[in-house]
Amino acid sequence: MNSDGGVRRWSATDSSGGDGRPEIRLDDGCGGGSRYPHAWLRNNCQCPSCTSAESGFRKQVIRDFRFGSAPARLQIISNNKLYVKWDDSHESTYDLQWLLERNFNEGQERHENQQVKWTAESFSAIFRSFKYEDVIKSDETLLQWLETLAVYGISVIKNCGLEHDRVKELARRVAFLKKTQYGETFKVEVNSDATNLAYRSTYLQLHTDLPYYEYTPGVILLHCIVQPESSGGESEVSDGLSVCDRLKELDVDSYKTLSTVPVRWIDRGHDAGYSFHNIYVSPVICEDSYGNIKRINFSEHHRDSKFPVSIDKVHIWYDAIEKFVKIAYNNKIISTFKMQPGDILTFDNHRVLHGRKGYQGSRLLIGGYLDWDLIKSRTRVLQSQLSNKNNN
Amino acid sequence: MNSDGGVRRWSATDSSGGDGRPEIRLDDGCGGGSRYPHAWLRNNCQCPSCTSAESGFRKQVIRDFRFGSAPARLQIISNNKLYVKWDDSHESTYDLQWLLERNFNEGQERHENQQVKWTAESFSAIFRSFKYEDVIKSDETLLQWLETLAVYGISVIKNCGLEHDRVKELARRVAFLKKTQYGETFKVEVNSDATNLAYRSTYLQLHTDLPYYEYTPGVILLHCIVQPESSGGESEVSDGLSVCDRLKELDVDSYKTLSTVPVRWIDRGHDAGYSFHNIYVSPVICEDSYGNIKRINFSEHHRDSKFPVSIDKVHIWYDAIEKFVKIAYNNKIISTFKMQPGDILTFDNHRVLHGRKGYQGSRLLIGGYLDWDLIKSRTRVLQSQLSNKNNN
Repeated sequence: MNSDGGVRRWSATDSSGGDGRPEIRLDDGCGGGSRYPHAWLRNNCQCPSCTSAESGFRKQVIRDFRFGSAPARLQIISNNKLYVKWDDSHESTYDLQWLLERNFNEGQERHENQQVKWTAESFSAIFRSFKYEDVIKSDETLLQWLETLAVYGISVIKNCGLEHDRVKELARRVAFLKKTQYGETFKVEVNSDATNLAYRSTYLQLHTDLPYYEYTPGVILLHCIVQPESSGGESEVSDGLSVCDRLKELDVDSYKTLSTVPVRWIDRGHDAGYSFHNIYVSPVICEDSYGNIKRINFSEHHRDSKFPVSIDKVHIWYDAIEKFVKIAYNNKIISTFKMQPGDILTFDNHRVLHGRKGYQGSRLLIGGYLDWDLIKSRTRVLQSQLSNKNNN
Repeated sequence: MNSDGGVRRWSATDSSGGDGRPEIRLDDGCGGGSRYPHAWLRNNCQCPSCTSAESGFRKQVIRDFRFGSAPARLQIISNNKLYVKWDDSHESTYDLQWLLERNFNEGQERHENQQVKWTAESFSAIFRSFKYEDVIKSDETLLQWLETLAVYGISVIKNCGLEHDRVKELARRVAFLKKTQYGETFKVEVNSDATNLAYRSTYLQLHTDLPYYEYTPGVILLHCIVQPESSGGESEVSDGLSVCDRLKELDVDSYKTLSTVPVRWIDRGHDAGYSFHNIYVSPVICEDSYGNIKRINFSEHHRDSKFPVSIDKVHIWYDAIEKFVKIAYNNKIISTFKMQPGDILTFDNHRVLHGRKGYQGSRLLIGGYLDWDLIKSRTRVLQSQLSNKNNN
């Protein structure tokens, strides 16, 4: 039964689309239906010789695929299956429900989690905290944390204790840490030998980590072990998506400049047993082909003095970055808070600009990275497991 | 002295460019010179309070940067330095050579290694082999291997022995293996439990690895431990850059289709202790903003039956992929060879399509991945070390 109470009586027709391309048309007898190109339908035959029963993956070898396959016979079976006998005698049967889920529709499923932007005003409302023990023991809490990271780009795990392996244990709940040339985990503390300016006690301005990697880390985990008791060492964060939105509103040309003019990001040094010399050339704002922001690169320490553009672009780039910086540091955008020993701050490195106030005395964070590939994969696995559990 | 024998006598002028933007103009007294925007010059002051002496990185906090800085006084010192006193009394001194290396020029340094494309005809000439012992012991050979990978995208390391840790040892010469949900290293052998179709003895068609990762592995290392002595198990490779070139020549619309129509890549399964459900939506051919190919996604096993585009794009996509596949398998493009036990085949996963003929009997490869970020970093470090060594 469909929603208006009419009984669907499915029929299938070998047809051709508006441009004369061959397709099979399914009609539900109530004015609804959908269309499937011959090549797609044959290419997605679900029989055991075309699709792996164990993994669900396509076994067809495309070198040998008959792109011009046409149906010799069509039939609706039991009002819930489409049977096709092809012109090479191959036979396919498709669940109608399976086909309806694969109706063609531009742009569907591009985003699984809609990102919600925040400013100083909304920060306290979106800055959710979870308890370490809950994230470790409960898959429901783990999923909530990962979904919070995807939607808001920031979250804190409380009561983690002070053991130095907590970042690694937390990452294990997702998959595993992303190793970089700064090690699998790294200590953020005063280190007079360090080549990285994060390892000082002075003010650390807003930045994103490792913009000089093409495959920059997706999420940063920072475990606070020691924090000065007096003032100092407070964290500063700005939602890069909000900064970009505001910049676009105020001056769309500056937004375009920062999303198109290539900047050279560089890191030379030695740490964790590795000598490195990383360079990546990319604009500050990276958009995907739909115009959505997929990554922000921003690190004054790692912006090279070499600027491989024509001189007129240098001028407009400095004008644009001045506006970007003013917005990022505007009191309506930037939020300040102080991590407590035992907190693990977690945030999206493609999106959130982060920094730290200067301090005196001791301060120690242990950091690690996770890739979005792993977080998204784990999120889907948990969503599926918990939905099955709730349905049983 | 410059090349025409005239003596350069440098002078500096506070000036403005064609659009009235403030800049400092350096003139060499022989009709040559270069221009530096005020903001860039002040932003790249090399004094100890602006630039870290240890790391060479910018220490300026951009929140506090005076974007409107102007020179109060300019002077050329000893004909090899530019001295600037700024209008806030800050003083900067720049080596002229350093400035000349930073002359603005659109598009410079975009590519460090020019990629050379190959076909079946040129394959034997570009398919270089190195000895394992040489790569392990000699930095010169290590650098040659890495440069070969960057330029040609494929190379083989011979005489590696049969120990199962060789891929890891080889990766250690560069940095470290990229871990994925298939483990740090993975065995390619017949495995009846496997959800991945590579773990069968049947024909494995041309593909790239892990297109369902946003951060897909850059380079594949495959160590051959066991190979059937009779026929079977031969490797097949096609240079994706050559395939794309040929497609563009034959049918530029099909090239555009494959470089713009999004495809859904998917992998669900369980391996190495991880359950995963990866999805990445991306065209087959990924171009950078300059129109250069940066990555090819191609894996029939992992192309989802869900195709989130309008039906007319489905039709033209199948037309285009048919042409792409015919070229990739054309005898003038595809090359076939048989790895010997003790070989490690290494190739660019963003570029080289690879597959394997079916076989009977035993076959075992141990695989691992390296990221281009690490390879390029190591290459630069080696180039610098060896150039210093050769100059001493």
